[in-house]
Amino acid sequence: MGTDMNLTLYHYWRSSCSWRVRWAFELKGISCRYVAVNLLDGEVDSQEHLQRNPMGTVPALEVNGAFLGQSLAIIQWAEETFPAPKHVALNLPDGSPWERAKMHQIAETINADIQPLQNLTPQQLHSPNPEEQKKWAAHWIRDGLTAVEKVLEETSGQWCIGDQLSLADLCLIPQVFSAVRYEVSLEKLPICRRIYDAARATPACTASSPEVHQPKSR
Amino acid sequence: MGTDMNLTLYHYWRSSCSWRVRWAFELKGISCRYVAVNLLDGEVDSQEHLQRNPMGTVPALEVNGAFLGQSLAIIQWAEETFPAPKHVALNLPDGSPWERAKMHQIAETINADIQPLQNLTPQQLHSPNPEEQKKWAAHWIRDGLTAVEKVLEETSGQWCIGDQLSLADLCLIPQVFSAVRYEVSLEKLPICRRIYDAARATPACTASSPEVHQPKSR
Repeated sequence: MGTDMNLTLYHYWRSSCSWRVRWAFELKGISCRYVAVNLLDGEVDSQEHLQRNPMGTVPALEVNGAFLGQSLAIIQWAEETFPAPKHVALNLPDGSPWERAKMHQIAETINADIQPLQNLTPQQLHSPNPEEQKKWAAHWIRDGLTAVEKVLEETSGQWCIGDQLSLADLCLIPQVFSAVRYEVSLEKLPICRRIYDAARATPACTASSPEVHQPKSR
Repeated sequence: MGTDMNLTLYHYWRSSCSWRVRWAFELKGISCRYVAVNLLDGEVDSQEHLQRNPMGTVPALEVNGAFLGQSLAIIQWAEETFPAPKHVALNLPDGSPWERAKMHQIAETINADIQPLQNLTPQQLHSPNPEEQKKWAAHWIRDGLTAVEKVLEETSGQWCIGDQLSLADLCLIPQVFSAVRYEVSLEKLPICRRIYDAARATPACTASSPEVHQPKSR
């Protein structure tokens, strides 16, 4: 199943939502063509890209000519469509309903309550001043990761939910990367930092990282 | 399964995320105690409420003394924990993986790219001016629902995904309610409006609506 599929991921190297999907695809060994869409020069709002994703955001996945937006929708679809060994199943099939619920709580806190608010578009609508933009982004990241850290105190083992890498980690690591970029201190976020450091040392996280996908000429 | 559970939902009558969960519980016939948490007087940021949900938001579900935040995590947990007749299964068990993916795309566009941005807290951080706050909220609602309408052009039947009520509708209807409140015109959103009108006439949507849950004395 899935072997006759022609996949293209429209993404941006520094987009945290793009990284989630690239990481999932690396883990599951899904072959996919990657096409960069620039978030900074208006390409993301071009008619061409709006056909792929009417929100004018990345990532967008093309599957045999049809398009899908939203990173968590893409990962959920990949989970269903490309069965894989259990150690790379990202929705905790062996966990309890409560563990899966906590996984979704962490993923959605990042996906809904941190990332969209710290993102470039609301920064720019909030203020034209770069310092104000940075303060705005840092506020939402600090606030949200502080709440995530509280949840991790109950749920974490080696990873966010016990010792099985899951969707929660795929959301957490790109968000912590963004925290570092916006100079949010990780001092009071020891569990976030520990999981971040551990994940960053893994091959799939590295292969999908912004550093690897950054265009050489930009 | 689930019959020995003691459930309390901490919610707010006008919170769109609370409405999603109340609606799911009505559809599935889940009995639950409802406790109002005021978003306007600081109660949501009290130590007592932060114990329930470290984000200081509603809804939060208490299950036999343990807590769960994030509306989509709560609905997902309820889907797994309370098996119900298929006509009230909210994650399209009879649909294709692509239909479920589109359902998640719509749900996450609302859950991540509209609701958190139009919400009270970013409004207030953006500006102390009520007119500016309203413009800010209306911007995100208009922008996001315009994208949702494009997706619905491909996916909708009677409801967001064909003729089966799903998670996508549970996100859409409270968001359209909020559009009306912020005076966003629905003229260019005919599918959103049609589904909104149809849903509002159903018993479970009505029973879970803000009008029904609005405290008499506030």
